[in-house]
Amino acid sequence: MYTLHIANKNYSSWSLRPWILLQQLGIAFHEERHPFQADLQAQRKLFSAFSPTAKVPVLQDEQITVWDSLAIAEYLAERHPQAWPQDPLARAWARSAACEMHAGFTELRERCGMNCVVRAKPRSMTVELKADIDRLNTLFIDGLSRFGGPFLAGEAFTAADAMFAPVVFRIQTYDLPMQPLAAGYVAHVLALPAMQQWYAQALAETDIDQSHEEDVLRYNDLIHDERSAGVR
Amino acid sequence: MYTLHIANKNYSSWSLRPWILLQQLGIAFHEERHPFQADLQAQRKLFSAFSPTAKVPVLQDEQITVWDSLAIAEYLAERHPQAWPQDPLARAWARSAACEMHAGFTELRERCGMNCVVRAKPRSMTVELKADIDRLNTLFIDGLSRFGGPFLAGEAFTAADAMFAPVVFRIQTYDLPMQPLAAGYVAHVLALPAMQQWYAQALAETDIDQSHEEDVLRYNDLIHDERSAGVR
Repeated sequence: MYTLHIANKNYSSWSLRPWILLQQLGIAFHEERHPFQADLQAQRKLFSAFSPTAKVPVLQDEQITVWDSLAIAEYLAERHPQAWPQDPLARAWARSAACEMHAGFTELRERCGMNCVVRAKPRSMTVELKADIDRLNTLFIDGLSRFGGPFLAGEAFTAADAMFAPVVFRIQTYDLPMQPLAAGYVAHVLALPAMQQWYAQALAETDIDQSHEEDVLRYNDLIHDERSAGVR
Repeated sequence: MYTLHIANKNYSSWSLRPWILLQQLGIAFHEERHPFQADLQAQRKLFSAFSPTAKVPVLQDEQITVWDSLAIAEYLAERHPQAWPQDPLARAWARSAACEMHAGFTELRERCGMNCVVRAKPRSMTVELKADIDRLNTLFIDGLSRFGGPFLAGEAFTAADAMFAPVVFRIQTYDLPMQPLAAGYVAHVLALPAMQQWYAQALAETDIDQSHEEDVLRYNDLIHDERSAGVR
């Protein structure tokens, strides 16, 4: 049985990737959740008990430890080949897209941090942020057009979709401008039962991390907080 | 025959990764070199002719285009399995290390940009830069101790070593503090004929890119420039 170590569902974009991949492939796993700590030294110590980098996610499979979201995807793909498209051309595309997300979109990640349960509006659309959003649109539309959808590289959910799942939540949170075909993909992914389950669990979290909340407010105006919706 | 699109050998750390992997695996390929341009719009236009992201590296294999250094490694690994260690435990470690490099070490990359042929000294060792260097030491020593060296995941050069090859040049350029076992690995990689070939070709380049040269001087004092060694 795999054990997947993750952090808060509301904030941890890297955690969502292997979690949603395991869920969508129907692979059984044990989830270990470790909330972010206000004291970063304390967090480092806690996370070091299971992670060589003191970061999440980490997949434990018997004596094998796999750290990093993309390494987990490739590790799982060796055992569950449906993690990538079967067609070599679609697989090469999916891997390229997944890797582009893994190392790129830095402005989008900096200015639009994952916070599933709020709704916010970027105070300024910088040239770099617009370039990242333009590239997202181009990439999504390229994959959907080439391979026929409804997922990025064809009929089935693959690791490429898993790598972009946190971006899908960011698009919802910040209402980022998507072209029709790309917007359809975003809606399709948001409607997946596993994404709805992650969202519901993010909403139910009571361990609010101030640092992650401030990340949103640094560049964006808060419009709505789903966590306080029931209170009003 | 594979075609590998790269940029200047002196500066393009991402280009070095697939290039050194192909060389070390003894795979024949055709190299297409595209120097960085002072005019970024012009560069974008030039690079867009072969790259979906207008970035390097890109591997072209018949009708298949693979962009991103790590995606190229995984694409090659499907056709040349020796790109990763054969032992599953070593392979999981190698993938995790490669992915950690792909998305991490941001401070090291920001402050110690790859410039193979100069020697420079960081003006200040920030907490974040020290943390990256500490992690490099820990990671190198972990791999070398676990799998017996002389490469990160055992006897053979794999994609993990390819992903760290640019860091090996950075360690030489900035004389970054390495612990003995890690320093031995760095010396071993620098001595590889393929690394020496890349270095010689970087030294011979006449298309100096001012922006990359300034990246070095922003955070570091220049000690020596091998390109002007013959002139003095």
